[in-house]
Amino acid sequence: MKYVAILGLGTVGGGVARMLCDNRERIAAAAGEEVVLRRILDLRDMPDSPFSALVTHRFEDILSDPSISLVVEAIGGVRPAGDFSLALLRAGKHVVTSNKAVVSAMGAVLTEAAEAAGACYLFEASCGGGIPLITPLSRDLAPNRITGLCGILNGTTNYILTSMRDSGADYADALAEARRLGYAEADPTDDVEGYDTRRKLNILSAVAGEGLTDERLIPCTGIGGVRRADVSALAREGCAVKLVGVMRGGYLLVAPHLIPRDHPLRSVDGVYNAALIHGDKVGDVMLMGRGAGADPTASAVVADVCEALSGRAAPCRLRAGYVPPDFDGYGCPRYFCVPEAAADALTARVPRAVRVTSPEGEAAFLAPPMTEAACRALAEELPLTSHLRVLSDLCDDSEART
Amino acid sequence: MKYVAILGLGTVGGGVARMLCDNRERIAAAAGEEVVLRRILDLRDMPDSPFSALVTHRFEDILSDPSISLVVEAIGGVRPAGDFSLALLRAGKHVVTSNKAVVSAMGAVLTEAAEAAGACYLFEASCGGGIPLITPLSRDLAPNRITGLCGILNGTTNYILTSMRDSGADYADALAEARRLGYAEADPTDDVEGYDTRRKLNILSAVAGEGLTDERLIPCTGIGGVRRADVSALAREGCAVKLVGVMRGGYLLVAPHLIPRDHPLRSVDGVYNAALIHGDKVGDVMLMGRGAGADPTASAVVADVCEALSGRAAPCRLRAGYVPPDFDGYGCPRYFCVPEAAADALTARVPRAVRVTSPEGEAAFLAPPMTEAACRALAEELPLTSHLRVLSDLCDDSEART
Repeated sequence: MKYVAILGLGTVGGGVARMLCDNRERIAAAAGEEVVLRRILDLRDMPDSPFSALVTHRFEDILSDPSISLVVEAIGGVRPAGDFSLALLRAGKHVVTSNKAVVSAMGAVLTEAAEAAGACYLFEASCGGGIPLITPLSRDLAPNRITGLCGILNGTTNYILTSMRDSGADYADALAEARRLGYAEADPTDDVEGYDTRRKLNILSAVAGEGLTDERLIPCTGIGGVRRADVSALAREGCAVKLVGVMRGGYLLVAPHLIPRDHPLRSVDGVYNAALIHGDKVGDVMLMGRGAGADPTASAVVADVCEALSGRAAPCRLRAGYVPPDFDGYGCPRYFCVPEAAADALTARVPRAVRVTSPEGEAAFLAPPMTEAACRALAEELPLTSHLRVLSDLCDDSEART
Repeated sequence: MKYVAILGLGTVGGGVARMLCDNRERIAAAAGEEVVLRRILDLRDMPDSPFSALVTHRFEDILSDPSISLVVEAIGGVRPAGDFSLALLRAGKHVVTSNKAVVSAMGAVLTEAAEAAGACYLFEASCGGGIPLITPLSRDLAPNRITGLCGILNGTTNYILTSMRDSGADYADALAEARRLGYAEADPTDDVEGYDTRRKLNILSAVAGEGLTDERLIPCTGIGGVRRADVSALAREGCAVKLVGVMRGGYLLVAPHLIPRDHPLRSVDGVYNAALIHGDKVGDVMLMGRGAGADPTASAVVADVCEALSGRAAPCRLRAGYVPPDFDGYGCPRYFCVPEAAADALTARVPRAVRVTSPEGEAAFLAPPMTEAACRALAEELPLTSHLRVLSDLCDDSEART
C-alpha cells in the first residue's frame, strides 16, 4: 500500500481525490499496489467535503510524514507551489503536478532536484489536461528529431473563438457567455492574453528538446484583437481562427492564427485542445482531447501517480536557458485586411498576395511567407485593419527562417 | 553498448535499420546507452544493401548470440515469426514487433513468456504505425475504464475510400490507382476485406482491458461493397464513409461506417490513421498520424527498443479468451437506401427514419439505433440497396446494447 497527499483541494485536487476513490482497482493494477489518499493540504476547513477528515493547514504535516511517498501538487501559481515541490522532492517524495506555471518557471530546478533525490517530478497534466502529450513526446517520439510543434492549448480561448464563429458574436459577448457558462474565470487575463498557452508551449518545447526558456522571451498575442468580421469571412472559406502556440525552426510564439481548411487543427473546436507534432521519422502526429476540467486533468495526474509509484517512470530532465532566435526573422504566410480603397496599394506592395473573401468594405489577402520585420514595415506604410499569421505545414521549417 | 538484431529486412525492418543509424544520438539518449545493430535475419543475401555484412540466413545465429539483448521481429505473418519470438523471449531476449498477426493470435502466450523470462515483448508498432496508441492506452489512460474505442486503422482502405469521395471513382478504379501508387499490395485481400483492421482492433481492445479474442469471433465486413453513389451522396451532407474498427459495450466489429459531419474521425483522410478512445474520466481522446510506411513504423519500433533497453518498460500482459456478446444484439444508428419506389414502405416500417440526400433513383434514410437482428429482418422484407452502420458517440455505450 502507498500513501499519497494532495496540495490544494480545488478543481484539479478534488478531481484527483475522487478518481483515487472511484477507480481504485484500476489504479492499484497500474501502480502495482493499492494507492491510498492520506492527507490534503488546504487553507480551508471544508467540513462538507467527503475528504474533510484528511485536511490539514500545515504543509509540514505532509513534508514530515514518512509514510507519504508521493504528493500531488494542485495549488497553482509559482509560489508557494514551487517551494513546496522542491522541499518534497529533496525529502525524497515523488511530486506529480498539473501546475504549468511552476513547470514553466522552475522545471529545470525541480527535475534536477528529483534526479538528485532519486524521486520523480512528473507533469503530464500541466499541458493539455487529459490528452497524453508529455509522455508521447518524451517516450514514443523520443527517437525522432522534433522539427515542429503547434497546439491549441487553452480551452477558454478556443471556446470563445468557436462561439464567435458559430454564433457571430463579437469578442466581448463571447467572453461574457464563456464566463456565464463557467468556461472562463472571473479574471480571464491568463487565458485570453495567451499567457496560459505560452507556459504550456514552453514546457512542450522543452520536452521536445530545446530546453525551457524565459517565458518573456516568447512573443505572445492574445485574442482580444480578433475581429468578428475576420472570423466570419474566413469561416465562409472553411478556415478558422485559433489561438495557437507554435514551435518551428527554433522559434516560439503564441498568437491567433488563421487555420487553413485542410489543416488537422482546423476542426478542433470548443473546449477541445490538440497538439500537432512533427518528427523527422514519424511525420505528423496529432493528439486531441479535453484540455481542462476536473476529471480529464485528474486522469493525467493519476496516470503519473501510477507511473511514479510503479518505479517505471522515465526521468524527464528539463534543461533551462534556451534562447529563441530574434523574432524579427520569423517567417510564415499572412492574412491581411485593408480598407477597400487601399486594396490596389497592397497588391502593388505585395504582388504575390491573393485576394480572398473579405469583411464588408475591406479587402482581405493571403500573402506568401513574410518575416515579422517585413510585416512591421508594411503596417507602417499601409492602413492594415487586420493581420493574422497563417498556420502552415510543420514539415517545412525552412520557411520559418525565410 | 547494447546489441540488437532484426528479423526480416523488408519495409519495416529496413526502416528500423536506417533509423538506428540516422538517429543514433537521440536513440542512445532514450535507451540509456548506445544501440548497435549486429545481425539481420533474412532469406535473401542483399549484396547491395548497406547492411549486407550483417545478414545471416540462420535464426540460430541470433538466438544463440549472447551479446544480442533485443530482437526486432519484422517478418510478418504468424509463422514462423511467433515461434521465433517465443524462442527468443524464452532465451531472455527482449522482442519488439510491428507484426499485428502474431500479437493478435499469440499475444497472450508471448507476453506470458516475456514475463516469465524477465524480458519485454513490446508491440506499439503493431497498431497505427507511428501513432502512439498502445502506450497511451496502457500507461496514460490506464487509470480510466475504457468504455469505447473506434479507429481508422488501415491506410490502404482509407486511401481508397478518400479517393472514391474526392475523385468520384468507383471501388475497382480507386483500388487500381492505390495499387499503382504503392498504397495497396499486389494481393490487397488483408486490407480491403478488413482482416488487417480486425487484428489491430483485437490488440487495442485487449490492451484496453477486455483481453484478446479469437479473431474469427469479430464480425468483419470489407470495403468491396461500398458504393460510389453512397460515398458521393454522403459527401454532399459533409459525411464520410470509412472502414472502422469499433469496441463498444463489449462488442467488437469491423465494417464500413458512415461518419457524421461533426465526428472527429470524419476528417481523417488518405493514408492517415486515427483512434478515438473514450475513458470514464478523461472523456474522448483522439490520436492521429501515419498508420503505415517504413519511417513512421520504424519510429514506433525504435521507441519500444529504447524503452525495453532502458529497463523502464511497463509489462503489458495480454489475457486471452475474451468472448464478445452475440452480435445480433448490437445496436447503432443506420443508413439505408431503397429504390425510390420502396421509400414509403421503408418509412412505414421504420417510422423514425429520416430522409437524407439520396443517390439518383433511390431514397436514403438515417434510422435511429437498431440491432443487427432487426436490420436482417428489415433486409428480408424490403429491397435494401445499401446499408451502413453510423458511427455514434462512444460515451453512450448503452446504445450498443439497445
